[in-house]
Amino acid sequence: MRSRDPDALVSAAVAGDRGAVARLLSLVERGGAAAQEVGRLTYPLGGQAYSIGITGAPGSGKSTLTNRLVEVVRRTGSEVGVLAIDPSSPFTGGAILGDRVRMQDHALDAGVYIRSMATRGHLGGLALATPQAIRVLDAAGLPLVFVETVGVGQVEVEVAGAADTTVVVVNPGWGDAVQANKAGLLEVADIFVINKADRPGAQQARRDLQEALDYATRERHRPPIIETVAVAGQGVAELWEAIEGHHSFLASSGELEARRARRIDDELREIVARRLEQRAHELCRGEPFARLRRAVLDRELDPYGAAEDILRRAGAGRPGGEDDQEPSDD
Amino acid sequence: MRSRDPDALVSAAVAGDRGAVARLLSLVERGGAAAQEVGRLTYPLGGQAYSIGITGAPGSGKSTLTNRLVEVVRRTGSEVGVLAIDPSSPFTGGAILGDRVRMQDHALDAGVYIRSMATRGHLGGLALATPQAIRVLDAAGLPLVFVETVGVGQVEVEVAGAADTTVVVVNPGWGDAVQANKAGLLEVADIFVINKADRPGAQQARRDLQEALDYATRERHRPPIIETVAVAGQGVAELWEAIEGHHSFLASSGELEARRARRIDDELREIVARRLEQRAHELCRGEPFARLRRAVLDRELDPYGAAEDILRRAGAGRPGGEDDQEPSDD
Repeated sequence: MRSRDPDALVSAAVAGDRGAVARLLSLVERGGAAAQEVGRLTYPLGGQAYSIGITGAPGSGKSTLTNRLVEVVRRTGSEVGVLAIDPSSPFTGGAILGDRVRMQDHALDAGVYIRSMATRGHLGGLALATPQAIRVLDAAGLPLVFVETVGVGQVEVEVAGAADTTVVVVNPGWGDAVQANKAGLLEVADIFVINKADRPGAQQARRDLQEALDYATRERHRPPIIETVAVAGQGVAELWEAIEGHHSFLASSGELEARRARRIDDELREIVARRLEQRAHELCRGEPFARLRRAVLDRELDPYGAAEDILRRAGAGRPGGEDDQEPSDD
Repeated sequence: MRSRDPDALVSAAVAGDRGAVARLLSLVERGGAAAQEVGRLTYPLGGQAYSIGITGAPGSGKSTLTNRLVEVVRRTGSEVGVLAIDPSSPFTGGAILGDRVRMQDHALDAGVYIRSMATRGHLGGLALATPQAIRVLDAAGLPLVFVETVGVGQVEVEVAGAADTTVVVVNPGWGDAVQANKAGLLEVADIFVINKADRPGAQQARRDLQEALDYATRERHRPPIIETVAVAGQGVAELWEAIEGHHSFLASSGELEARRARRIDDELREIVARRLEQRAHELCRGEPFARLRRAVLDRELDPYGAAEDILRRAGAGRPGGEDDQEPSDD
């Protein structure tokens, strides 16, 4: 019994074994050769899942909202996966644990698969681990995957923004909470939610959003603004309709395919860049590096000459040397 | 007459031709093969110059202070170079121009070489261009080089912090102006200056700095805090004494050599990483890349398989594939 063998785990996951799904996600989190193997095995089996990113400042009610959306989706009979992406910050660890407890509402529902994800050793961190995790759920036959991030930092917004439909959750008086990355949120949002809309300031928040959207030049569809009170379930059906509406818009306009193609481009560039960066770290250590450094310190070799030597040794040097000024065919 | 030929320019610069120095610095700014050639030619000629980084928030009086320090240094008979590093932000462009006008006090003094530097095409930007620019001044025989940056952003603090002695300039009520990168400033400072010390709050600024320094665990020498009123020349001689004192401390403790060796390590890693990054961008375009992307979109190949293919084609692949989990000998 090779329970950690990716091949056996993928077969089990496809056959409906949720424990196998969990073990595959652990392999993805940990990174390395096994994660890559999981990607190789699951990728050809997928392509059916629709992903929905949900992001917003901590405390904005994202988890409650996701929980409510899962209820709505389950009433349609569809199975659903939820990935709660946690960048493992000591400041947010507590919050996400609390959120997860609330999500236990669905713990006994076999049609819902919920998993918190951090990144341990995955090359490129959450930005590269999350698409691989979605592929595991996709291969396991879950037609919908919610990807919820715990904050509005650059990586979190990027992760949520890499979904098919991205929902940005704000609250009345939202300005301060998202100030640091407001432009990033406006950029990725397909749908805005004003959660806790029963609190004072909801109409002001709507006007602020409208104004920000007027200002941001957008070629594609203008994000609708949905008001919800997630704890009471208010507005959640309307939000689900907006998500389905955006899905239909993407599918009928050809934008879904174009968007996924752009994501593959980004992912390939990121994998290549991270692998090369990793290579640079490997190259700048050990005895050969120490010898080159000595030569540079003794002024027998200049730093660029030493770098050329390192790159040549790695097979990554080019005959022309540094040619960042050469015309490109890009 | 090949006036842009790096070899001829370096010979002329060494012989005292300041026009040749200016043209060499333009080549460094522009980057590419010529900049690399300038580095190759100037590096073996240098090693005598002592560099002094000066950083602080815009408006803190760095340029006036540098100007005054140049006066003090010139009275000792020593020649001096000043590099004003400008990240070309539209928001700071005006400020540095104003600063440069003030520096014209020294315009007719042949013992002072002043130059504003931006980065145009240099690989790795100012962080990599600045050491190369210092080497040009070093090869040209200037024994002292002031490196002044226009703000307290991460790159600017990094650039100033890569000097032999780093001076951080604050003002009374300094907290807000440097809040975003306070930790970075504390990390790089060898000497603190409270400029405009005739204004209210100078003693509070000193107490704040003392407290911050108590808090920051430091093994090396504790940065002195010098009060200046640069416009009136007050405290400038004392600041120069502190700079000379720090220089003596570094030289006698062996820390100067150790610090320069660490900087060479950092620079080599940075050059290698930037070259590999550049390689990644080159690899992710053109017809072969388009074919791989198509295969990924058609799910004939997974993204990691495609990335392997790209890296192999570049000679940067490794037989073992992604092995970020392998034990390292680091």
